[in-house]
Amino acid sequence: MKRVFIKNNVAVILVFVLLTGGNCFAQSPSTITEDFKPSSVNQSGKEYPQVNSEGRVRTQISAPDAKYVQLDIGGKKYDLVKDEKGVWTGESAPQDEGFHYYQLNIDGASVPDPGSLYFYGASRWGSGIEIPAKDQDFYALKNVPHGQVIELPYFSKTNNSMRRCFIYTPPGYDKDTQKRYPVLYLQHGGGENETGWSAQGKAGLIMDNLIAEGKAKPFIIVMDNGTWSMQGPPRGERPAGGEWPPKGWADGFTKTLINDIIPMVDANYRTLADQKNRAMAGLSMGGMQTRVITLANPDVFSHVGMFSGGSISMEDVEKSPGFKEKNKLLFISYGSRELENRRAGFGGDPKENTNKLKEAGMNTHFYVSPQTAHEWQSWRRSLYQFAPLLFNK
Amino acid sequence: MKRVFIKNNVAVILVFVLLTGGNCFAQSPSTITEDFKPSSVNQSGKEYPQVNSEGRVRTQISAPDAKYVQLDIGGKKYDLVKDEKGVWTGESAPQDEGFHYYQLNIDGASVPDPGSLYFYGASRWGSGIEIPAKDQDFYALKNVPHGQVIELPYFSKTNNSMRRCFIYTPPGYDKDTQKRYPVLYLQHGGGENETGWSAQGKAGLIMDNLIAEGKAKPFIIVMDNGTWSMQGPPRGERPAGGEWPPKGWADGFTKTLINDIIPMVDANYRTLADQKNRAMAGLSMGGMQTRVITLANPDVFSHVGMFSGGSISMEDVEKSPGFKEKNKLLFISYGSRELENRRAGFGGDPKENTNKLKEAGMNTHFYVSPQTAHEWQSWRRSLYQFAPLLFNK
Repeated sequence: MKRVFIKNNVAVILVFVLLTGGNCFAQSPSTITEDFKPSSVNQSGKEYPQVNSEGRVRTQISAPDAKYVQLDIGGKKYDLVKDEKGVWTGESAPQDEGFHYYQLNIDGASVPDPGSLYFYGASRWGSGIEIPAKDQDFYALKNVPHGQVIELPYFSKTNNSMRRCFIYTPPGYDKDTQKRYPVLYLQHGGGENETGWSAQGKAGLIMDNLIAEGKAKPFIIVMDNGTWSMQGPPRGERPAGGEWPPKGWADGFTKTLINDIIPMVDANYRTLADQKNRAMAGLSMGGMQTRVITLANPDVFSHVGMFSGGSISMEDVEKSPGFKEKNKLLFISYGSRELENRRAGFGGDPKENTNKLKEAGMNTHFYVSPQTAHEWQSWRRSLYQFAPLLFNK
Repeated sequence: MKRVFIKNNVAVILVFVLLTGGNCFAQSPSTITEDFKPSSVNQSGKEYPQVNSEGRVRTQISAPDAKYVQLDIGGKKYDLVKDEKGVWTGESAPQDEGFHYYQLNIDGASVPDPGSLYFYGASRWGSGIEIPAKDQDFYALKNVPHGQVIELPYFSKTNNSMRRCFIYTPPGYDKDTQKRYPVLYLQHGGGENETGWSAQGKAGLIMDNLIAEGKAKPFIIVMDNGTWSMQGPPRGERPAGGEWPPKGWADGFTKTLINDIIPMVDANYRTLADQKNRAMAGLSMGGMQTRVITLANPDVFSHVGMFSGGSISMEDVEKSPGFKEKNKLLFISYGSRELENRRAGFGGDPKENTNKLKEAGMNTHFYVSPQTAHEWQSWRRSLYQFAPLLFNK
């Protein structure tokens, strides 16, 4: 009896220590695997942030007069600990494989980490980190023939202003100047911009590697800015029964794409400028835009991809004359964690929608990225799965 | 006598108030012109940082728990003042026209300002600000035909690694696929990288505007990373009589440029691949590299530009067989404040050196950028003056 009592007491003390530790540190230090290495997207020569084999992020910053410093990643804030020289260090819980946005919080100020490269997301230029993924080889920088990513300023009549787009041309584009190529219009998500697919999306490297292995036909990719402001209340204040997003939300970018971007690209690059050689795809908000724009313009686009951005239902197809007959490929994808969290629900179940269209004779594909959420690793993998299916018929 | 005494007292009190004020605020608030506008290089939608007509920078950040926040620009730190909501605001002294790097200091942590776009300089990605210049029209984004800036990964045998360069091709490059172009190799300064000339240097816009006005011949610009580590002690510990920079400091980049970059560019782009159609220029460290590389390779480069990076003396020319005969243009420039501060001294007086070579029959130009220092406005203006002189003979 006494022995049991002692045992229980030890257990209680252990639990107490762990809980107390939890208030001071993000993780009890003894549980952290000490194999941290600088992140692959650090600034040149910077030792921090680092990542370990568990996917934890460790960062470090000198802030001798700060009261507190936190690492803000994946929707959680982790306290850093100060040493005698005023240098703060701390770790996050393990993160999913792939790319994540994050920031530091110094005495209430949200700022980028001076150690990382910066990426545009969450409506700001801010820090990014790369958790090495088991399948990272498909977007690795290798000594294979490389395409070029072009930054081009151009004038948009629709917007009566200068705009900027990025254009990927495949390896050899500037050598054989007789050859013409199909085009994929590829859109970013909400709070992101025209830099996303090339920088954190690694679209150019994914294509270079696919083409080098003979897995995808070479094509041009156009990445423009699809940011739109909705005429409606913010997410928390939307009427329960109201239509969301409101009708017409994609009109601005639709006009810019159809009237300005596509003619500009066809006039300046060696494109195959017809429906059967033109695709559109996008992630999240870009997927929703792809849905609206391709359903309404079946004579413009033949191949369609929506990554974590809803799906197309039989009802959608029935309301869009010509879409079923003229579409050559419909690719729908999600991160597995999105499906677990039922985040993929709007517009009906995406897998069920996609299967019904396949049964009705359409060339549809449904892809799930294993163990990833609404993040770039899902979208890199989606492009890697989608690109080989393009312009094959 | 009594009247004089009172007058002196008032003067003493006024001086005391101004000095005391100087300890709390960067400037006595009453002397600041309140016509601040968001900087042209702010992130999309960000209201701060701002610039007024005096060239003062005002920035603002929420940091409710901070002890102090400072604006760190032009080698000085200016205290920001906190309001009741924990938002800090403050101004710098007037800055020179053009682009400047800066950062914030929050309780001892040096971090980028979350309001600005980020640029690579001072060996980091950090904040930049644009003080509107009287002559800013020459690098303004206009509705004229635009060239493209290409990001290209390539393999370097010299370094046995992948590298990245940026290539500007002039308007129409992709339309008339028979035409070939001269090439300018254009280098950044110390602590900067291959992104500098295109981003803060605005090289593409300067060329687009010059070409649209018929002031410069269209040519290709190649911008690569010339960062080198010197085998020698840091600046403060250099021996007084020792040679600086040490012999051989530019060898690494010389080999990369001559053996890898130039052949790669000539193989992949429609260049005029001979000496008379090849130029090299650079700023600061890039100018010093240009000096060493072009003196040693008169059969490779015909046109030479050094911006705030020393000059070439008669002695240099005499030691470099063929340079005097084969060089078609030597352009040397400085910001006026550099000459005032005698910063331009190494290698002899640059104006005197350049004039002596002109007297000896070389086609030399010496340019001074008015009221600018060792900063990007001097170098934008230098490119604007240099480009029209290229490839005309």
